[in-house]
Amino acid sequence: MPDDRLARQLAFLVEADKLKTVLRRTPLVSAGRFENSAEHSWHLLLAAMVMCEHTMAGIDVARVLELLVVHDLVEIYAGDTFAYDVEGQRTKAAREEAAADRLFGLLPVDQAVRFRALWDEFEARETPASRFGNALDRFQALLLNAHADGGSWRTHAITGPQILERMAPVRDAMPDVWPAVIEIVEAFRDAGIIRN
Amino acid sequence: MPDDRLARQLAFLVEADKLKTVLRRTPLVSAGRFENSAEHSWHLLLAAMVMCEHTMAGIDVARVLELLVVHDLVEIYAGDTFAYDVEGQRTKAAREEAAADRLFGLLPVDQAVRFRALWDEFEARETPASRFGNALDRFQALLLNAHADGGSWRTHAITGPQILERMAPVRDAMPDVWPAVIEIVEAFRDAGIIRN
Repeated sequence: MPDDRLARQLAFLVEADKLKTVLRRTPLVSAGRFENSAEHSWHLLLAAMVMCEHTMAGIDVARVLELLVVHDLVEIYAGDTFAYDVEGQRTKAAREEAAADRLFGLLPVDQAVRFRALWDEFEARETPASRFGNALDRFQALLLNAHADGGSWRTHAITGPQILERMAPVRDAMPDVWPAVIEIVEAFRDAGIIRN
Repeated sequence: MPDDRLARQLAFLVEADKLKTVLRRTPLVSAGRFENSAEHSWHLLLAAMVMCEHTMAGIDVARVLELLVVHDLVEIYAGDTFAYDVEGQRTKAAREEAAADRLFGLLPVDQAVRFRALWDEFEARETPASRFGNALDRFQALLLNAHADGGSWRTHAITGPQILERMAPVRDAMPDVWPAVIEIVEAFRDAGIIRN
C-alpha cells in the first residue's frame, strides 16, 4: 500500500471531524443546546436499526447505514440548511454539489467515487434504502422537537401543514408510523404551540 | 403491529439522545471542546468505511457498522470511562452490564436481545468485526489527540509506552497502519509532549 493512500484517508477523517461543529436548528431532548450534524447522523443510524421493520420488507439495511453515515458530510462546507428556509433550500443543491467535490476529493480516487455515489443516492431519494433513510431524517427531527417542547417549530413559528408536508416521506416509507406523526402534530396544535 | 411495540422503540430512541451529552476526554480537532460519545460513534462508522481495506480480507463491514452504532450506548448510564483511569477500568464491566440491562430493556424483547448481543460481541473482542471495531475506537482517539496538539495525552501526562499498549489492537487488526501509530507517538515524544 502506498503511504499516500493512507495519508489521504487520514486527512479525510481529520477533516470530517468538522461535522461535529455544524449545528442544526433542532434542540436535543436531553440538553439545552442545538444538535450537531455528526451526533444527528449517529442517531439516524440507530433509528435505522430500530425502525427497519416499518419500511418495505427486504430492504438492504447495510446500505441504509452507509447512506446515513455519509449523508450530511457536505455540510462541513455547505452548512446545514434549515428545512423551512425557502431561500436556503433554493441554493442548497449547488452549494452541496461543490462541497461534495471538495470533500470527497480528499479521498483516494476509488473511494471518492464510492462515497460520492452514496451521497448522490441519498439525495436522489429513488432507491428503497434512500427513501427509508430520508424518512428517518425527517422523523428523527420530529421526535426531538416533540420531546423538546416544540423545539424549532416553536422558535420559528412553523405551522401544522408545513410539518406534515415535510414529513410526507415518512408516510411513504413507513406508513404504519404515520399515525404517530399525525398524533404528535395534532397534540402540539391542540396545545397552541403550532398553528394551522 | 401493536402500538406498544412502536411506543417502546420511540422511547428507546428518545432515551438514546442522552449519549450526545456524555463527554469523552478527547478534544475535537476542529473546536475547543471535548468530544461526545454520539458524535464519536459516527466518526468511527465513517472510519470503518474508509479504513476497512486495512483489516483482514472478507470482513463483514455491515456487522462492523452495527457494532459501532451500539458500542457506546451503555455510557448513557455508566458514563465514559477514561482509557487510562485504572480504578474506573476495574469497575467498568459491572457498571456497563447493569446499564445494558436497563437501556436495552426499553426495547421490545426481540430487539433488546439483538442489541445486547451486538454490544456483547463488541465487548468480547473475539470476532474479526469486533476486533476491527475496537481497533478503530483506539485509533480514532489517537488521530484526534495527534491533531489537537497532544489532547488528553498532554492533559493527563500519558507516556509513550501507555499509548502503545492502548493501541495494541490497532497493530493486530490493521498491521499496515501500525507504522503510522509509531510515527505519531515518536513525533510527540521527540517534541517533548509525551514522556517515555
